[in-house]
Amino acid sequence: MSQTRSNQRAVVLLSGGLDSVTALAMVKDAGHECYALSIDYGQRHHAELNAARELARVFDVKAHLLVAVDLTAIGGSALTEASIAVPEEEATGIPVTYVPARNTVLLSLALGYAETLEAEHIVIGANAVDYSGYPDCRPEFIAAFERLANLATKAAVEGRPVHIQAPLIEMTKAEIIQTGLRLGVNYALTVSCYQADEIGAACGNCDSCRLRKQGFEDAGVDDPTRYQ
Amino acid sequence: MSQTRSNQRAVVLLSGGLDSVTALAMVKDAGHECYALSIDYGQRHHAELNAARELARVFDVKAHLLVAVDLTAIGGSALTEASIAVPEEEATGIPVTYVPARNTVLLSLALGYAETLEAEHIVIGANAVDYSGYPDCRPEFIAAFERLANLATKAAVEGRPVHIQAPLIEMTKAEIIQTGLRLGVNYALTVSCYQADEIGAACGNCDSCRLRKQGFEDAGVDDPTRYQ
Repeated sequence: MSQTRSNQRAVVLLSGGLDSVTALAMVKDAGHECYALSIDYGQRHHAELNAARELARVFDVKAHLLVAVDLTAIGGSALTEASIAVPEEEATGIPVTYVPARNTVLLSLALGYAETLEAEHIVIGANAVDYSGYPDCRPEFIAAFERLANLATKAAVEGRPVHIQAPLIEMTKAEIIQTGLRLGVNYALTVSCYQADEIGAACGNCDSCRLRKQGFEDAGVDDPTRYQ
Repeated sequence: MSQTRSNQRAVVLLSGGLDSVTALAMVKDAGHECYALSIDYGQRHHAELNAARELARVFDVKAHLLVAVDLTAIGGSALTEASIAVPEEEATGIPVTYVPARNTVLLSLALGYAETLEAEHIVIGANAVDYSGYPDCRPEFIAAFERLANLATKAAVEGRPVHIQAPLIEMTKAEIIQTGLRLGVNYALTVSCYQADEIGAACGNCDSCRLRKQGFEDAGVDDPTRYQ
């Protein structure tokens, strides 16, 4: 293994949605060797994981790992608890689709995978502009995770720190879409809807669908989303 | 629910080993309402989880949640990868029983559970004195996780911070044992061995067994461990 290659390994959290695949396209375009990691946390929108598999294949990642963690046991979110409905109208404050500590869990699993691979980068498609008000999508959260990560691992103690990259964090949804299109992302393959059906068709009404629709409109490009 | 009770909820990570049950006994003794959380991460020493169930019952916790996360998919440790043997002699440096990012994963799941319960405390039996050199058992790691936690959650954003308690962090194994005995812990119910058999009997030779044996010797009390 050459030193150059080893310096550019990246674990990319790939949900199957619009944001994470754009992050993957950006990191791949930057010349990193990409390892995709998808987490089955019991999310309602399970079609997302099928989309992740297909996107990992299209982007020819070095490996695609699927790790299961049962966040339905913890509950507390419309995405992981069947008894809480996904809202179809805009609400104020942090919505019920917020999953307790979700990005902390996702990043911690990525940290384990990155250490095993000796990867220097972890990439997450978190976005603090056109997002849903989730606390774990803010730049200060990402920075705090990087500080933690570099105290947590054997790799860090031995002088191999890890960098947490959130390349979309300051971009609007329209900018994300324009960037992805330039890098060849086929957004028809992505699933954003919180309650997508089995084949991945979107409801068009949930928070995630509304942000996505508005993003395509603002970007001035056709929306390839399959709606129910 | 009274304000007093709500102010004292604690999620206690309970592995089934000697340390975590002592932490549970201490937190319970301090008057907190305890919720035990055990994580099935695919550890080799599965008997630990049966011990956790029994200890949760004996300590009459409010609830005991078991969450599964498949760290064997990530591998990189003698505890989660069958092809890496558990060493039976003392080694220098961070040993192969270190599980990549384990305590970060455990604490992130505890953070999700704590937020759902509106608990103010998360308790982990990490110990930086008589430990195995794991980076994620150091006080600076615990402090960094607390900082992260208070940026990560809806609860924190809304003014309900969480405290990460590691009450054993500066104690020797002998002090831990003496404290637990004073609080009524029956250490015969605990399983520390990395390769315990199905009924929880210990090998007596792995790192964890050696630290435990030495702890009982230093504490000047009988070792109730069941050996194979």
